Amino acid sequence: MAHLLSTSCTLKIAPGCKPNSRLNQDSLAFSASFSFQTSKSPFRSFRLPIERFRTNSTLQETTIPSSGFRASSGEGSKAEKVMVIGGDGYCGWATALHLSKKGYEVAIVDSLVRRLFDQQLGIDSLTPISSIHSRVRRWKALTGKSIELYIGDICDFEFLSETFKSFEPDAVVHFGEQRSAPYSMIDRSRAVFTQNNNVIGTLNVLFAIKEYRDHCHLVKLGTMGEYGTPNIDIEEGYITITHNGRTDTLPYPKQGSSFYHLSKVHDSNNIAFTCKAWGIRATDLNQGVVYGVKTPETDMHEELCNRLDYDGVFGTALNRFCVQAAVGHPLTVYGKGGQTRGYLDIRDTVQCVELAIANPANRGEFRVFNQFTEQFSVNELAALVTKAGKNLGIEVQTTSVPNPRVEAEEHYYNAKHTKLIELGLQPHLLSDSLLDSLLNFAVEYKDRVDMKQIMPSVSWKGIGAKPKTVAA
Amino acid sequence: MAHLLSTSCTLKIAPGCKPNSRLNQDSLAFSASFSFQTSKSPFRSFRLPIERFRTNSTLQETTIPSSGFRASSGEGSKAEKVMVIGGDGYCGWATALHLSKKGYEVAIVDSLVRRLFDQQLGIDSLTPISSIHSRVRRWKALTGKSIELYIGDICDFEFLSETFKSFEPDAVVHFGEQRSAPYSMIDRSRAVFTQNNNVIGTLNVLFAIKEYRDHCHLVKLGTMGEYGTPNIDIEEGYITITHNGRTDTLPYPKQGSSFYHLSKVHDSNNIAFTCKAWGIRATDLNQGVVYGVKTPETDMHEELCNRLDYDGVFGTALNRFCVQAAVGHPLTVYGKGGQTRGYLDIRDTVQCVELAIANPANRGEFRVFNQFTEQFSVNELAALVTKAGKNLGIEVQTTSVPNPRVEAEEHYYNAKHTKLIELGLQPHLLSDSLLDSLLNFAVEYKDRVDMKQIMPSVSWKGIGAKPKTVAA
Repeated sequence: MAHLLSTSCTLKIAPGCKPNSRLNQDSLAFSASFSFQTSKSPFRSFRLPIERFRTNSTLQETTIPSSGFRASSGEGSKAEKVMVIGGDGYCGWATALHLSKKGYEVAIVDSLVRRLFDQQLGIDSLTPISSIHSRVRRWKALTGKSIELYIGDICDFEFLSETFKSFEPDAVVHFGEQRSAPYSMIDRSRAVFTQNNNVIGTLNVLFAIKEYRDHCHLVKLGTMGEYGTPNIDIEEGYITITHNGRTDTLPYPKQGSSFYHLSKVHDSNNIAFTCKAWGIRATDLNQGVVYGVKTPETDMHEELCNRLDYDGVFGTALNRFCVQAAVGHPLTVYGKGGQTRGYLDIRDTVQCVELAIANPANRGEFRVFNQFTEQFSVNELAALVTKAGKNLGIEVQTTSVPNPRVEAEEHYYNAKHTKLIELGLQPHLLSDSLLDSLLNFAVEYKDRVDMKQIMPSVSWKGIGAKPKTVAA
Repeated sequence: MAHLLSTSCTLKIAPGCKPNSRLNQDSLAFSASFSFQTSKSPFRSFRLPIERFRTNSTLQETTIPSSGFRASSGEGSKAEKVMVIGGDGYCGWATALHLSKKGYEVAIVDSLVRRLFDQQLGIDSLTPISSIHSRVRRWKALTGKSIELYIGDICDFEFLSETFKSFEPDAVVHFGEQRSAPYSMIDRSRAVFTQNNNVIGTLNVLFAIKEYRDHCHLVKLGTMGEYGTPNIDIEEGYITITHNGRTDTLPYPKQGSSFYHLSKVHDSNNIAFTCKAWGIRATDLNQGVVYGVKTPETDMHEELCNRLDYDGVFGTALNRFCVQAAVGHPLTVYGKGGQTRGYLDIRDTVQCVELAIANPANRGEFRVFNQFTEQFSVNELAALVTKAGKNLGIEVQTTSVPNPRVEAEEHYYNAKHTKLIELGLQPHLLSDSLLDSLLNFAVEYKDRVDMKQIMPSVSWKGIGAKPKTVAA
């Protein structure tokens, strides 16, 4: 099933060069010089210098500077090989392009099932998105950079094995999971699908690393939702507890609040075990709610445009609010609106992943970063969107709808998020200009909005055992 | 696929009556009087008094006294209906008989896959065990008590739905999981099977309760191995943490050390969520290592005899040591032997489960009991078996074998286990006489021992992605 689209080429681009006039002003300068290898190149057995892969089971962090280039023994600079599982999705696509631009050799592994979900549920991205094949061809045409494409399901270990043997990744970024909490709460079969797909897919990735690429660094997307809303500060993965006169540092207690969130908790526990038992090196990125749509790379051409979900199943808070504002629908605040979470700009998602790759975990280390830049309550977000609307002459109203979820609507929330900053993350904080831009973007595409998809349609308490069908 | 073997009858047995001369002296007195219903009886819609099912999301415990009988509205005493999933297994079979004797109406749900594992791996119980059909018929012949039998896989939701609709359980005791840590570490396919089978099976049980029997109390078998070996005291499910000046009571951090143990961690997290979201009432019994083989009920007839596993995959520490001693094989201590765990007699397993059923969790309550009675290190167990051997004139030697697992071999361990005692558990502590009896039992069957199965055969670090085949 694997489609290899890579070709061989060499390209030099001067820093700051813009191959396309639509290149965003915020784009990072292209790196200076690099070369490519095809999947049959003599560099297929390329390995990173051995000193980067020392065995170390402590939580000590490496201090390798962030860079897409690695020195190898006498062969000049070569890009590290990164497999992006789920590279056709919202975060995955933006990340794949960012890493490719940064000089990494990138392969996308994706079953494309996310596009099937849209078809099955009768929903669609606000933005028109091209096929993954067109996307990759366009990227190659614009930049000269190849992205290898492997279309298949990582729950099929035979397929996954072939991707590992063919591409030989040095890092795997794993976005390849069913990523919607509401989707996992539609009915029993979607709940079971979500946990089976996510947990078994990740187990397969761990086995593939152990079997074929044991130095490979797993960068796994978790979620801040794994922690729930405890009444104490949320730490990054671990907490030191003194109890009855003794002290230990233990995994931070998790309280997932949907079958989706729970699937990520299960993944974290499985990965932690394999780090200890097999010496796997892994970074768990507990990501907050992502907002925005443009990155410098996806903004280079309309065929590279990212998806933007606004529906009640796959849409997330801030993006949904901007689309609701654009079409004149009241912002749908669930319950009291005091639900507070961590948020980040999609441009920071791609930056964080690259920082994790460039500063890999040690052998046997299970490293956890909380990947977000700011905390907001839902009411605060609604107020920000209302203000941004006023700036653009849009009158924005807010309505409280019955909360379809089971969650605290007023609670303490203080989550730490310093580790990625320490590695060099330069956050794009939520600003008026970003909100204006996102709102304008939503207005630009508002004719594509299906008003039937605005309201929440999935109830945490109402989930049934029988398959839920979707009306036309 | 469901086989209904139940018939209708009424039987009175005086306290202390022994229908079979082999009935153990330790047997609990039969309860005084009870009646049975067939699956087509007019009592199929029997419900427990409504006050027992009040909604309460706190951790408050009920104080209903332990009893197999419930008063119902004007119909006299009726047994509560308990579905025992995995009722053909080591703990499940003993529990099903104990509950039946106590006056509960019992159904066994089992796929019998545990027997298939024996065939596939070329291993066998030390004791010859009858088919589940023969077992149930023998129980009926001896006691007049019917046990309904549903043969099928709970991962098949259609099958599970039928069992719920047919039997209408008031409590579900869920032993129906792949329960061996080494089995889960044989190869990738067994690791994936274990997590898929256990997690999805339990999800299905939760959905079946929600859909068909929302007052039903789930009594789920977890394992003490979910906690790992933290350097602080292990509490029963929850720990109160004061951190940066704030305090919360949170799920106790888990550190599973095999794909099997992790599957139970996943279950615990999933169940906790459904208690909160749906109001499921659940008790998680984090069981220690079970030893022994006889219960008063299984000892009534050879066709009721329980299985006793001594092999490196399904055998557990103390039972294995007794069989090793019986055949003159040195006791196989893994590594340094300082591994300390909680242990309990199988007669206490059945007692604990009955206590949990008789004192159900409240609506929305996720209650966790640590189900063991004593802690021992492996070296302490070896010393006890050596001493018991000396009493019987058997010279017992001990050998340290390379530890096939990844685990601390010397560590702090202090796990709380007071909640079941508070409910009335009267422990059978490990005594010289029990060890003598177990050792004698092993000697009785020693000609059935396959010496090739004594040594550990599964390595935590050596697990591969490819299917492991078994030599003849």
